[in-house]
Parts: sequence; C-alpha cells; structure tokens
Amino acid sequence: MTTFESISDQLEAQAIELPSWAFGNSGTRFKVFTTPGTPRTIEEKISDAARVHELTGLAPSVALHIPWDKVDDYAALGRYAGDLGLSLGTVNSNTFQDDAYKFGSLTHTDAAVRQKAIDHHFECLEIMNETGSNDLKIWLADGTNYPGQGDIRGRQDRLADSLAAIYGRLGDNQRLVLEYKFFEPAFYHTDVPDWGTSYAQVAALGDQALVCLDTGHHAPGTNIEFIVAQLLRLGKLGSFDFNSRFYADDDLIVGAADPFQLFRILYEVIRGGGFGPDSPVAFMLDQCHNVEEKIPGQIRSVLNVQEMTTRALLVDRDALTAAQDAGDVLGANGILMDAFYTDVRADLAAWRESCGLPADPMAAFAASGYQQKIADERVGGRQAGWGA
Amino acid sequence: MTTFESISDQLEAQAIELPSWAFGNSGTRFKVFTTPGTPRTIEEKISDAARVHELTGLAPSVALHIPWDKVDDYAALGRYAGDLGLSLGTVNSNTFQDDAYKFGSLTHTDAAVRQKAIDHHFECLEIMNETGSNDLKIWLADGTNYPGQGDIRGRQDRLADSLAAIYGRLGDNQRLVLEYKFFEPAFYHTDVPDWGTSYAQVAALGDQALVCLDTGHHAPGTNIEFIVAQLLRLGKLGSFDFNSRFYADDDLIVGAADPFQLFRILYEVIRGGGFGPDSPVAFMLDQCHNVEEKIPGQIRSVLNVQEMTTRALLVDRDALTAAQDAGDVLGANGILMDAFYTDVRADLAAWRESCGLPADPMAAFAASGYQQKIADERVGGRQAGWGA
Amino acid sequence: MTTFESISDQLEAQAIELPSWAFGNSGTRFKVFTTPGTPRTIEEKISDAARVHELTGLAPSVALHIPWDKVDDYAALGRYAGDLGLSLGTVNSNTFQDDAYKFGSLTHTDAAVRQKAIDHHFECLEIMNETGSNDLKIWLADGTNYPGQGDIRGRQDRLADSLAAIYGRLGDNQRLVLEYKFFEPAFYHTDVPDWGTSYAQVAALGDQALVCLDTGHHAPGTNIEFIVAQLLRLGKLGSFDFNSRFYADDDLIVGAADPFQLFRILYEVIRGGGFGPDSPVAFMLDQCHNVEEKIPGQIRSVLNVQEMTTRALLVDRDALTAAQDAGDVLGANGILMDAFYTDVRADLAAWRESCGLPADPMAAFAASGYQQKIADERVGGRQAGWGA
Amino acid sequence: MTTFESISDQLEAQAIELPSWAFGNSGTRFKVFTTPGTPRTIEEKISDAARVHELTGLAPSVALHIPWDKVDDYAALGRYAGDLGLSLGTVNSNTFQDDAYKFGSLTHTDAAVRQKAIDHHFECLEIMNETGSNDLKIWLADGTNYPGQGDIRGRQDRLADSLAAIYGRLGDNQRLVLEYKFFEPAFYHTDVPDWGTSYAQVAALGDQALVCLDTGHHAPGTNIEFIVAQLLRLGKLGSFDFNSRFYADDDLIVGAADPFQLFRILYEVIRGGGFGPDSPVAFMLDQCHNVEEKIPGQIRSVLNVQEMTTRALLVDRDALTAAQDAGDVLGANGILMDAFYTDVRADLAAWRESCGLPADPMAAFAASGYQQKIADERVGGRQAGWGA
Repeated sequence: MTTFESISDQLEAQAIELPSWAFGNSGTRFKVFTTPGTPRTIEEKISDAARVHELTGLAPSVALHIPWDKVDDYAALGRYAGDLGLSLGTVNSNTFQDDAYKFGSLTHTDAAVRQKAIDHHFECLEIMNETGSNDLKIWLADGTNYPGQGDIRGRQDRLADSLAAIYGRLGDNQRLVLEYKFFEPAFYHTDVPDWGTSYAQVAALGDQALVCLDTGHHAPGTNIEFIVAQLLRLGKLGSFDFNSRFYADDDLIVGAADPFQLFRILYEVIRGGGFGPDSPVAFMLDQCHNVEEKIPGQIRSVLNVQEMTTRALLVDRDALTAAQDAGDVLGANGILMDAFYTDVRADLAAWRESCGLPADPMAAFAASGYQQKIADERVGGRQAGWGA
Repeated sequence: MTTFESISDQLEAQAIELPSWAFGNSGTRFKVFTTPGTPRTIEEKISDAARVHELTGLAPSVALHIPWDKVDDYAALGRYAGDLGLSLGTVNSNTFQDDAYKFGSLTHTDAAVRQKAIDHHFECLEIMNETGSNDLKIWLADGTNYPGQGDIRGRQDRLADSLAAIYGRLGDNQRLVLEYKFFEPAFYHTDVPDWGTSYAQVAALGDQALVCLDTGHHAPGTNIEFIVAQLLRLGKLGSFDFNSRFYADDDLIVGAADPFQLFRILYEVIRGGGFGPDSPVAFMLDQCHNVEEKIPGQIRSVLNVQEMTTRALLVDRDALTAAQDAGDVLGANGILMDAFYTDVRADLAAWRESCGLPADPMAAFAASGYQQKIADERVGGRQAGWGA
Repeated sequence: MTTFESISDQLEAQAIELPSWAFGNSGTRFKVFTTPGTPRTIEEKISDAARVHELTGLAPSVALHIPWDKVDDYAALGRYAGDLGLSLGTVNSNTFQDDAYKFGSLTHTDAAVRQKAIDHHFECLEIMNETGSNDLKIWLADGTNYPGQGDIRGRQDRLADSLAAIYGRLGDNQRLVLEYKFFEPAFYHTDVPDWGTSYAQVAALGDQALVCLDTGHHAPGTNIEFIVAQLLRLGKLGSFDFNSRFYADDDLIVGAADPFQLFRILYEVIRGGGFGPDSPVAFMLDQCHNVEEKIPGQIRSVLNVQEMTTRALLVDRDALTAAQDAGDVLGANGILMDAFYTDVRADLAAWRESCGLPADPMAAFAASGYQQKIADERVGGRQAGWGA
Repeated sequence: MTTFESISDQLEAQAIELPSWAFGNSGTRFKVFTTPGTPRTIEEKISDAARVHELTGLAPSVALHIPWDKVDDYAALGRYAGDLGLSLGTVNSNTFQDDAYKFGSLTHTDAAVRQKAIDHHFECLEIMNETGSNDLKIWLADGTNYPGQGDIRGRQDRLADSLAAIYGRLGDNQRLVLEYKFFEPAFYHTDVPDWGTSYAQVAALGDQALVCLDTGHHAPGTNIEFIVAQLLRLGKLGSFDFNSRFYADDDLIVGAADPFQLFRILYEVIRGGGFGPDSPVAFMLDQCHNVEEKIPGQIRSVLNVQEMTTRALLVDRDALTAAQDAGDVLGANGILMDAFYTDVRADLAAWRESCGLPADPMAAFAASGYQQKIADERVGGRQAGWGA
C-alpha cells in the first residue's frame, strides 16, 4: 500500500473554508438552543474561526452570508480577518428570509421581486469586490409546497434569465456557483433540486459558472461520489458544502454519519483531479451545531475531512487499476478498504507537530480556555443565528 | 358499486379535531412567514376553528398545546369554546422547547429533568380534568444527533419508567396516546421512531395507553395502511394525526401529496372497525400552513378527509372479497379503484346542503368576509406561533 | 373548468407503444410464475398486442427486444404485424444477459467486450432499417456492486466513446434514446443512474440522441414531473417507459401506485409541448405482469394513461396561471385538483363508442374468449420470458 | 481506550452460521451468472463452507434451505458435515417457489394452500429433529402487488393461525424465528414488513418464538441498531441475517456498504447482552455473491463481522457513559469513533495465528488451490442455485 510518507506533502495544500454561520446558533423549527459565548458579530465569528485554523492549519478562510454578516467597512473586516490569519472567502446570498420571497426570488412571477433578488446578488458582488472574494454562492430556497402552486417550467425559464443577469456582472476572476437541494424549505418541488438542473443552468451561463455540491442535499440512496466523478469529468464541479446526514438535510458534522461515504467522495475528488493546488474545487463546510459545541464541532469537521483525504490518498491506485482490469471484484474492493481501514491518526498527529501544530487539536482547544473566555466576555447583546 | 345514498348516513358521525396551532404561524428553520389576522390568543384560535366547523360540520373540537395555549381559567375557556359550538379536545404536551430538554426529557439521564417532564404531564392531566379532555397526547422530540451521544437502550428503559409514572395518574376515562416519529428534530436516533416502539411501550402500560399514528412520520416507502390494519387488529390504534408529505415531515394539507394513499388508509380504518360512533380512534389534523392561508387550509383538509372517507365507504366489499378469494388481481384492484375514481363532490355538496351547511365551504368562507375582518381587527400584539 | 368536449379531439392522436416482453412471463429473482396461453414466439406476442389495440385504439405499435424477438425475416414480421393493425416500433438492445457483460458492456475495460456490445447495437440498427423503426433504446445494466470494483470515471469516458460509435451509424430519421436507472441489477453504482448523466451523454452526441425517462427508475421521493418539465425545456425528452412503483423498480401497471403522480407527469408533458401529433416524445409501457393477467394488464395500463391524460387536458390553464400569479396557493392547487378529481370514465366510454371501440375494453376482452382460446391453443413449446 | 488484549478472549466464542445457498449461483431477475466450481449438491456446499471455517475459525455451522438441500438421509449428511468440522444449523423453509403460493402461503385465503404451507414447516421440523437443528427460520414472501389484491387484515389473522399451528409442533429445544422484510418479491404490501409485525406475531406465540433481523430488509434511513437494542430489551431478538445494501435488499457482503453501521449494530448487540456464550442471538450470513467469488466472499464476510465486533468490544463503555451523562456530545461520539477508527487487523492476524489459524485467511484461501481444484473437479451436473 501507499505509505503515509509518500503522500504527506500533498496534505499541505488542503484548505477547508469555514462558514461564519456555523459559529452562531442554529436549530430546527422546534427549537434553537443557545449557548454561552456564542458570537454576536461577524468579528466574533471570525475570531472563533481563527481558533480552528490556528489549531489545525486547515481552515484559512471564512465564508460570509449576506445580510447576516453585513458591515459598513469590508476592507476593515478583511484586515481584521487578516490579522487573525484568515481571509474572507465565498459570499453566500440570501433570498429566503425576506417576506417578498414567500413565493420565490429569482424565479418569481413578479419581475419586481426578481429584480430585487438580482439586485441583492449585485450587492453581494460589490461586497466581493471589496473583500476580494472569488466565489458567489447561490443556494435558492425557491420552490413550491403544493402541486399547481407554481408553473415548474416557467420558473425554470425565469431562473435562467435571472442567473444570466447576475452572471453578466461577474468580474474576470469571479465565479458563480449554483447549489442544488432535493427539498426544504419547499416541500413539493424545488427549482434547483438536483445536479442535473444545476449543471444545465450553469452550462448555459458560461465557464465562470459551476455547480456546488452539498453532501446533504440528495435523495435517499444517492451515490454522491458518482456525481463528483461526473461533474469533474464535465469540468463543472465548483465547490463542496460538506456535512453529513442520516435522513434529510440534517447538517451534521461531516463524516459523522457515514465516514466510508466521505472517504469514497474524497477518493473520487482525488481520482478526478479535484484535489491539489491547481484544482478549481473549493472545499467548504456547511453545518449546524444544534446540540454540540460549535468551535470543537468545526475542529472535528476539518479533521474528519483531513483524515479521510489522507486515507483516500493512501489508495494504491496502480494495484486498484490492475484488479479492476482483471475483474477481481474482491481484490479491487479490498485495495480500497485497506486504505479506508488504515488508522492514520497517529501519523497525522506526528505530521501536525512537524508543522508546528498541536498533535491533538481537540484537546488543545479544550485546554486553551478559549471557550470559558468567550463565555465570560460575550455577555449581553444578541447572539448570532439564522434570524428565521 | 355501493351507492352514495346507502352510505351517507355514516358520514354524520365523522368528526375531525383541529389543532389550535394550525391557526398560528409556522414555518421552517429558514423562515416563518406571518400573515395578517393571525390569532394572538387561544381564544382567537378557537374563534377561527369555529368557522371551520360552522362551514363543514366536521370539526367539533379543538386540540390544545401546553404551554402554548395555557390560560388561567380552563373552565372559562371551555365555555368560550362551547358558545362557539366547539369542545376542547386532546391535550398535547411539550417537552422540546425548554432548555432543560436539550438532551432529552422523559428519557434524560438526569432524574431531575425526567421528573420535570413527568410533572409537566401531570399538569397536562390537571388541565384535562378541567377541560374534560379525554386524551393526553405525547409526542417526544427526544433523541440524539450523533452515534454514541446517548445510550439507546438506557433511554428506552427510562422512557418506560417515565411513561408508567404518567400513566398512573390517568383518570378512568382518560387515555395516553403515544406518537412515534421517524426523525426530526433528532437526526441520528429518536426514542420513539416507529409504530413497533410505540406499541411495545403502550402495551406495557395497559389498556388506556394507545398509539398515535401521524401520517407524516414514516420512512420513505412505508405502507401506512398496513400499520393501520395492524394496530386496529392489536386493539391499539388510538388516534391519527393527519397531514401529508413528499419527503420528510412536511406537514402539508392531508391528502395533498397522495390522495390515493389517504383513500387506502381510510379504507383500512373502515375495514378494521376504526370508523363510526363506537370506534375508539380519534381523527385529528396536525399540519402547518407555511405558505397557504390557514383557515381555508383547515377547511380544505377536513373536506379532503371527508371526501376520501366517502370514497372508501363506497368500496363494494362483498365484490372485493369475492375477487380476492378468486385470485383475480386486476378485478380486485379494479373494485378498489372504482371507488377511488368516483367523483363524490357533487353528492357531498348536496348532502351538505341537506344538513344546513354550505354546498361549497371553501367558497362560503371566501365570501364571508371573515378573513378581512380578522385582518382588520387583530392589529398589534404578538401573533401566535411555535415559539421556536 | 375545461369541458371534455373541448379536449376530446386531442385524444385521437394518443399512441402508447406496447413492449413485446410484457406478454411473456416475468417475475422476480425468487420466482417466475407461468400462465396458460403465454406466447412462445414474437408472432404470438404481436397477436396479443393486437388485441390491446383493437379494443382500445391506443396501442398501434409494438417494441421489440433483441435478441428475445429475433427472427429471420423482419420484413415478414412487419407484414404480420401490419395485417393485425400494428407497426413495429422501438428496438431495445440487450447487454445484460451475455456472460461477456458480467463486468460491463459499453463501459467495459476490455475493448473487445465494448466492441461486442457496439456491434450488437449495429445489429439492432440493421434490424431497425428492416422494420422501419425509428428509435434505438439503450438501457444499460452496466455498473458495479462494490466500491472499488470499477473506475467510475473511466467507465463514463468509455461509455461516451461507445455511444459515439453507435450514434455514428444512425440513419437520418433514427434516434438513440438513452435510459437511466437508479439501481438494479448493479447495487453500488450504475453507469447511467440519473437524468443528468443521460442528458450529459446525449447532449455530447447530437440532436438525434435523447433521454428516455422510465417512471420507475428514480430515488425515493424524486419529483418526476420536474424532470419531465426540465427535459422538455432542454429539448431532450425522447421517450417514456411507463410503469409504477412503491419501492424500487417494481414495474407495476402504470398509474397503479400513485395515480396523482401520473396525472402530474402528464400535465407537465402537455404543458411543455410533449403531447400531440407534432411532439417528438414517444410513449411506451415497460411493465411486468408477475401475478396479474398480461393482456388485461396491458389494456388497463393504456387506459390508465388515457384517463390521466384526459384529466390533465381538463386543467383550466388560464385560471391556473391567474391563481399562480396571484400567489393564491390553495386556489391554484384547487384548480389542478378539480381536474384530477373529475371522473372522466363515462365520457371516455361514450367517446370510445363514438370511435367504434367498445365502451369498456376490459369487459370486452373478458367477453371475447381470447384468453381461453390462446390457453387452449398454445400448448407445448417454450413460453417466452426474459431468459434470465 | 480498552485494549485488544483485554477483549481478545471474548472473540473465541464468536460463531457465524453460513447459508448453504451462498455457495450456489445467485443473481437478479436480469441474469444469474454461473462460475466454474459451483457446487451441484449440498455436500459440495458443505465442503466449501468447511473451507471458510477451517481458515477463519468463525463459521462452525451451515444453514440448510428446504427443499433446495433435501437429502434422503439427514443423519448421514450430519456425519458428513461433522467429519469436515461443521454442524448443521438453522433450517430455512421455502414458501415462494411453488405455483400454489402465487397469492400467498401461510396467509392464503384457501385453507388447503395454508395447510400445504404448514405441512411444509412440519416437514422442516422433522428434518430438524434428524439434523439436531434448533432453529426453524421462516421468511415469508407473502404479500400483494396491487392495492385491493388481498385483504391486509385477514391475511394477518390467518398468518397468526398458521404460525400457531407450526409453533405447536416445536420441540422443547427448538425455536421459531420469524423474519421480516420491507418489500420484494411483493411490491405493494408484504405480510411481515417490519420488526413490529414480527414482534407482535411472535409475542403472541410464546417464548420459543423470536424475531430474525435481516440487515437488508428495512426502509431507507432506518436506524437498525435501534431495532437491535429494542428487540434485545424485549427479549425477542432471535437471530441476524447479515448482509449489506445501498438501495434495496441488495444482499451484498456484510459490512461492504456501510462498515460504520455494522459497527454500531454490533455495539448495540454487545451493549444489550446479545453477544457471548450465553446469548440466545444467532449470527448468520444471508448474502448473494452475484459477481464476486463465492468462497472468498464468505470469508471476507465473516472477517468483516469479526473485525467490527472487535472494534465494538474496544469501546470504553465507562468513559462513554460518563460523557453521555455529562451531556458531552462530541466527547461521547469521539469515544465511539475512537474504537471504530482503530485498525484491529494486525492484532487479529496475530491472534488468529495464536489460535493456529492463518494470519490472512483471504490470502491463505487464494494460495490453497481449492478454487482451481473444484473448478476442475465439478464438471457436469447442474450447478446449485435458487431455482427461480
């Protein structure tokens, strides 16, 4: 099997963007539990994100969500982040919390509502120009709850028009990534429910438009690594939103529900050229820490991605190809499983130390006193959340 | 085929309880849309519910949710409802919105939290004594989000103990109905995930404990009418929470997603003796009107149940049995489909008029001006919702 | 609402192709039940299919499956069908029953196996030239059962090459339609699992390549009518394989499991221009009559499609658009449901008689004595089946 | 964390029964691929099974399937197995391959068919008396394909009567284990679809009736370890049929699809007292090796169960309980994951050698020449299969 030593240099390039909203409160329609120390501002979110990167070396950027993270001075915010060792990353738009969007945003039958939603994306692009962000990520909550409520076909056509308007404003180094989601918050149809729809829409836009794959946004039983392989083949995989699920869009910690699936996804990423310094694929988390601690939850998440990336890099691809070509089903499967079953944690701990990082970032965080510090300091104000 | 005339007298006994919370705002974790005229108080909810019954004759009682519907004087509340032609029905407990219940309520490892949850149910029973309600319905949000977070087995044992404590306080004419749910708000395991668990728990309690079947709380593909038939056979079907779903617990209008499924469910209810004046099975709605109007949404819902009940009553059961016994697959299926495909709406409209009800309750409500009236009157205050 | 009279002329053009294999035996891996009268030859299958068309006027062509339906003289077979009022339709290839295809056909790592599979399709095209068939339908069983068994990405690339070779041989009036399937017979990954993959592959081929949508080949919860709308929008919906399912690819009678879904699908077909004499969309059945009678099963199926098409045509589209534009959720849904709930069976019976067809094709078949006749005559020989 | 040394003695008791039919051919409704060396007789199946046990020490018994494994002299068969180091285990009945059972067996409306099916089980019990088998396992294919085809309720009542008749013939040391299955070969309803139904039926029979849990027989998303915990709590978990699945009842190698799920299942087995010499829970495989080699497939399977059992035994249960009681979500989850991520393969290899077994049973089998030997010797005759 491939050795850890032979692949460890490839680990250096790994970067996983953190979502600012993961540090705020989140929950379900039934209850949002609050916790002491939860950030009140984007600056406090960035401060928390900086701890994750400091302890893991894996998370050098933070994604913003507009309007949740709006500030007056984005240049100042960028400097604030930079001082903490972070950069500002993807800008996420929000077309699901304004009353105007009750029946749709970019797909709405009313041109005025569509323009409002388009203008919101223009504002996001202006923020990106100030923050230096490259990616505008669009997750649309648009959809309907009842058959007949909307005209599926007309909505798709209007979506194409709205996206074209937004796409036309992209700067040369900017990208539009379009996320798809099987269901929720719409319960009969969503306007971008699957990778095929996202692909068809971004293919019509041009080279700077790509697909965002959220690992929790598929029908039960969907083979996600197949989609990864296909989108890489088509040159249209722009980014990942990592999380995990047992049922719906549970938004659990990535790798928590099915670590073997995460391994298979990362194997196809590597196989398809989606990993490494030249890859256009952006790795991001998109999770909710409803009942667990938020900062350790993020640390655990980036470590999970790193551990499974490492295992995927360990696959002996020459031997695998030979077994595949020979029709040796058990042999080929065994080669993949050998890598998955290899316990890379000690090697990673040593490698981390060699990089000046703590061997055990989870323990280092617990010992740091940071959680107690923010619990003590962040008193009063309004804790950040989704504002639902 | 059976004629409408021969079954219409059976329609008179149909009663579908309305949930008080259906008249308040509800939504998803992403957004709760508000609407003009939404009730601020339980009295206003009851007033809205009374319109549904007035126009349909189908909804003579309203379920309460504690603490959302707490008042100082339940006897006065009962008189208020009575004056509007309604009675107070099932009392629903709530063990999911107190911070103490973050890691469980009746299943919690901490005896003090369990006692708090038990005491809440004692309070509900006291309210029932005042309102004259018969049924205490328990839907537990208890569960865990991550493997290892809780001890599945120990939680089940503690649940049994807690339920026994509550059961011990039931009056002679009171029942405990235990709802099950596949997932949400917990995303790894729920403590009462399926009918088997609910059945095992209530069977251990005694004759006054039964199962509540919510039509939206099953795994994809589950044959719900089979569960109906089985629970009726075991003598343990206590009540229905009607709604419909395409994906998860979407809580859409009953019959909206799959009217044929609703028909099959009601056929098994009738077949198994669960329909009629002597049946112990309580019919309730449990829905969310996230984007549609609430009062018409409830009217549409009870009409859907009535229409599908009517179709199910039309099944020629003698002919069906003969075809089944003969192994005539297409013939038997055809007899069922004949009833399902029969358009009973005109017959029901005429029957409604013969009972002094409007032929078209939806149109009658729209023409009544009630919606405009409450929109004008209910200004200020805090609109009722889930308080999530 | 739209009246039956105003839409009945649109019914005349409806044609639903019958699969020859529906008249042979089929079953599960556990058991294939045989029945008296089952055809032994393609001529006997065509004879049975002719009865379906004679009684319904809906099924003027029969699809062939190669090699199951191979004959020496296709011109003679075409004349035989023509004498019975039928034409020969789509040719279906088979790359799943030869030992060579154990690990793939058009995707196989071995160029010789790929060429064998390509040559089989060339043979199918030659048969099409003789029968005058327009469509070559490719359903691929290719896939793997275990992670690592095959190289997902490489298989996709080889598939593209193989399809290009086949596409290159198409005549000017011929089409290649590529079916997708979620799973089975492969259980880890299939090489064409979803509409997105089929679309990406046929888009790369050219205008004569289109997608075939089998209604049973999706993940649980998939909104199929959305896919219909999307493929029509993209100009790539080539054909339907109709059937129905509760769980997997159950291949039950179309409309049997969820008639409302069939209605919604047909509504989007009509909405998107996929219905009528100028539509390029081919309607076919692909079903298994494991336990029910085969010829009546096919009659029931085409009638189900006709009945739901009729209901879908009845939708008052102007009123629907107005309600959608007004954000009237319940109103818009109600307009759709009005059409679905309309019992069109009596109108269709009268219309059928006006066309010289029996009012009740199911009863007419039962009364015809044909089933007894073939049971008496078709003695000996080997009943047709899948040859699994 | 718990050390391997401290738990290794618990591994000695592990025994996993092999299904005789795993050594014969199996496939899908589309194709059954044959392979050289496939057994023609039950004796050859037993010979193959003996290799699995010889190399792993894990599989001391073989389950029989009647009528596939019928012989004239079961005492002789038992001696034959004994000479190879094996015993004859569970007897599996078959009520799905006789034409009489097209519409049901133990549930059939015709008393004569029910009696035929009951008599078949009496025959199985007589065979058990001769082989010394303890368990009669009943998997029922009974069900219907179309709504209305059968009377769900009546079928359940008849099932209860039939089971009671069979139960009445059990010897003192014999058990009846009733398997449940979500769907297939029936596609609308199955008569024992879920654990609740199996539990209700066996609870009505008595202490010698228990539930068989096949890991592939659940709805998508079902939390199987919860069912394990619940059935152990209720004292009704009789046996496992191990295999794995991505979609339906794929019958893949146990642990191949989701090794973490297998780990969680085995953790709950251990937690609930289902593992060890005093446990009444029988472990069995029930798999299909459609495309992979059969004997290595069985070896891989028992090793997977052993490896995941070992990891589950490594869970530090005291620490886990402490973290659970403290509400430390990430800590508790981490303790479980630590055990899962521990690579036990080297320890198991050493332990195996200390027991006189080959360190690498897969390699040992490949090196043994047995596969070539049976391929050479087993020429002619009819290879064993399902006979579908």
